[in-house]
Amino acid sequence: MAKPTPLSGFPELLPAQRVVEQQVIDTLRATFELHGFAGIETRAVEPMDQLLRKGDTSKEVYVLRRLQEAPQERADADRTAGLGLHFDLTVPFARYVLENAGKLEFPFRRFQIQKVWRGERPQDGRYREFTQADIDIIGRDTLPFHHDVEVARVMLDALSRLDFLPGFRLQVNNRKLIQGFYAGLGAPDVDEVMRLVDKLDKLPAEKVAELLVAEAGLTGAQAEQCLALAAIRTEDDGFVAQVRALGVEHPLLDEGLAELAEVGRGCAALAAAPGRERVTVVADLSIARGLDYYTGTVFETRLVGAEGLGSICSGGRYDALASDGRATYPGVGISLGVSRVLVPILGRGALVGDRSVPSVVLVAVVEEERRAESDAVADALRSRGIACEVAPTAAKFGKQIRTAERRGIPYVWFPGPEGDPADHQVKDIRSGEQTAADPAVWTPPEADLRPRVIVKEDS
Amino acid sequence: MAKPTPLSGFPELLPAQRVVEQQVIDTLRATFELHGFAGIETRAVEPMDQLLRKGDTSKEVYVLRRLQEAPQERADADRTAGLGLHFDLTVPFARYVLENAGKLEFPFRRFQIQKVWRGERPQDGRYREFTQADIDIIGRDTLPFHHDVEVARVMLDALSRLDFLPGFRLQVNNRKLIQGFYAGLGAPDVDEVMRLVDKLDKLPAEKVAELLVAEAGLTGAQAEQCLALAAIRTEDDGFVAQVRALGVEHPLLDEGLAELAEVGRGCAALAAAPGRERVTVVADLSIARGLDYYTGTVFETRLVGAEGLGSICSGGRYDALASDGRATYPGVGISLGVSRVLVPILGRGALVGDRSVPSVVLVAVVEEERRAESDAVADALRSRGIACEVAPTAAKFGKQIRTAERRGIPYVWFPGPEGDPADHQVKDIRSGEQTAADPAVWTPPEADLRPRVIVKEDS
Repeated sequence: MAKPTPLSGFPELLPAQRVVEQQVIDTLRATFELHGFAGIETRAVEPMDQLLRKGDTSKEVYVLRRLQEAPQERADADRTAGLGLHFDLTVPFARYVLENAGKLEFPFRRFQIQKVWRGERPQDGRYREFTQADIDIIGRDTLPFHHDVEVARVMLDALSRLDFLPGFRLQVNNRKLIQGFYAGLGAPDVDEVMRLVDKLDKLPAEKVAELLVAEAGLTGAQAEQCLALAAIRTEDDGFVAQVRALGVEHPLLDEGLAELAEVGRGCAALAAAPGRERVTVVADLSIARGLDYYTGTVFETRLVGAEGLGSICSGGRYDALASDGRATYPGVGISLGVSRVLVPILGRGALVGDRSVPSVVLVAVVEEERRAESDAVADALRSRGIACEVAPTAAKFGKQIRTAERRGIPYVWFPGPEGDPADHQVKDIRSGEQTAADPAVWTPPEADLRPRVIVKEDS
Repeated sequence: MAKPTPLSGFPELLPAQRVVEQQVIDTLRATFELHGFAGIETRAVEPMDQLLRKGDTSKEVYVLRRLQEAPQERADADRTAGLGLHFDLTVPFARYVLENAGKLEFPFRRFQIQKVWRGERPQDGRYREFTQADIDIIGRDTLPFHHDVEVARVMLDALSRLDFLPGFRLQVNNRKLIQGFYAGLGAPDVDEVMRLVDKLDKLPAEKVAELLVAEAGLTGAQAEQCLALAAIRTEDDGFVAQVRALGVEHPLLDEGLAELAEVGRGCAALAAAPGRERVTVVADLSIARGLDYYTGTVFETRLVGAEGLGSICSGGRYDALASDGRATYPGVGISLGVSRVLVPILGRGALVGDRSVPSVVLVAVVEEERRAESDAVADALRSRGIACEVAPTAAKFGKQIRTAERRGIPYVWFPGPEGDPADHQVKDIRSGEQTAADPAVWTPPEADLRPRVIVKEDS
């Protein structure tokens, strides 16, 4: 077989890169669990009619068919009654909630870290397969607003623990605030205004102002007011006074201002804690989120120094994430694009594991006939939680040490002479220091127990 | 939207069931890491021509197409030049090794715990989506035999740590042993004999003897010898004498006997250790594994009391897992069917998490205006690694306690009266015991820190 070539849009990691991704996922999971979120997984597939409920995502779906399927199955699949791979974790979660509503406790708080697939052309940092980490809280019929604050705090806590990544900027806004503002301004079509203002990250402000007049029926003065609102960004409650200064009044605007201020206050204490310097929280009144189901709080997140990636962590409040004949399920959640953040950083070598294996120790083999002695040393170390491997061959010790070096394993263990197991030696191959050691007692420094993530500043 | 119904063959777990699966996966990963195996993941898709290299698996593949694909893409997919979902982790691993050979250190030891998909009709405990946990060691050009012993030991170690599961029986055999025996017997077509003897788990011995005469060209006496070999099962080296007593001689048989004895000895010490009573290792000379690429050691594993499930953990040695123009990559590995083991047990309720959330503590809310006090208690507990959640509403304490009970959360925390934060109380709702506690100091018993797996004996 010829050497295979990578598939565009399906990133894969080498072992030392996977160390980084695994630590990120472990940290996310640990944080979500600390906040009481239950981990679930959903199947990779959903019925096509579920996946296509939102028309504009249809282009992104991978449709499945069984290679040996019956003709009727094929016909069903072509009528989109078949199965497709999920393109996010929200559609499957909504379905899971409806399917299991009788067996879940509400409000139901779950995290979900899984791969998703989009059949789009891979380009611009977009992937066909990538990992997302979602948290959501979903209620039955009602869901108190304080959960909006909570999901922001949880994701902020998680992001701030990823201390080998660059800084993050969590941008928060509120749909009630902007919709109330547009309504108070007298806009004839609030949704159309929101759709056009959302283009500010792609079009110059003057162009958006023109569109607001031409397509949303605003006066020039109203359009300017909309742009003035969208220009407001504060790291504290200052946005409230700035909005008030624009002179627009509406009950929904008041509600949105109060909610946004509460999210900001809820995050402020967390962001101000020691060690949280890399995370900032901004009330950014230009954020609207294109998807139409958000009804209150909306979140986006930019990676400092990589703003071109777009939002790497987004979400918000939806008053009806799901509904069946008997109940409506409001929810609030945020989704972190794990691959979107990591793959470019790993690709340019800016982060990497300091070893490609979990092993702390390579146990050398004196001669092949004495491999069992080395196995016994390894078992003794493992019984105390020290990961290790035994050298593949009884080569000269210099070669066995190079085996460890190439994998980044920090210690090489030399079993004692036969009949004298007390005389074991362990060598730190970074410092060259070699000492006598007992496999039943010796313990490496805590920092060596697991692979570490190395930040390469110049990458 | 109407209540969705489950998709046959795509099992999903409720949160308390997922607790069990997650602990199994965590235990497997931790064990594999202790033995120095690097964790990798491969993409879910492979080119169809790779997936179809073995003709008889073609019926199992899910083919992908993009909903909006160009006609040429569709034509390519129909000519099987498209993409399909992987049906195991071996084909993707072989491809990953070839693709990255220049960047990997050999022997390369990896574990991989991922979902796989098979487009077959779901029945008889078969799933269309399921999780596998694979370990493999792969060399470049050569791979010492002792790695056969090693993978058996590693999987044995992993299985023995799953102490809430029923017992396992690891059955080992060696292709060289049986092929050498058939050759020494003078069988005209050794592979055909192996294929027919492999039917012993489905057909009565007399029927297999008839087939050996009719289809493999053996004499009646030779056929009886083959059945006598396949009937040998010993938990120690006893099989060697039993095979010798059959009077067949062949160099390959000698090699196979020596290898099988070495695997047995290597596992014996591990299986005899305290706490390993649930795991037995048997030299079972009927095991051949249908797949044609094994060339030495072969493994199967039965779950005690659920032998009807078939082998839940299988593998062996292959002299050429992969090869490119420059090198051949021999390997040895075992694959554990995580879903195959767990889904039936979880389905009948025999195992379940003792709570549906990670939370150790539910922090009660005295009144909605004082939610921030409860949040502060929760943050203090979390900063010391204690998972908790804050009550969703400031309902009567009795109702808040029931919120904890329904989720299986063992403790409810009552924040102290305003202005007197020292007077916090924590209640163990299992015992009813309530004590004063300081959020900066209080720690639950170690056993309460994480959800536990409960075994329900009568299920």
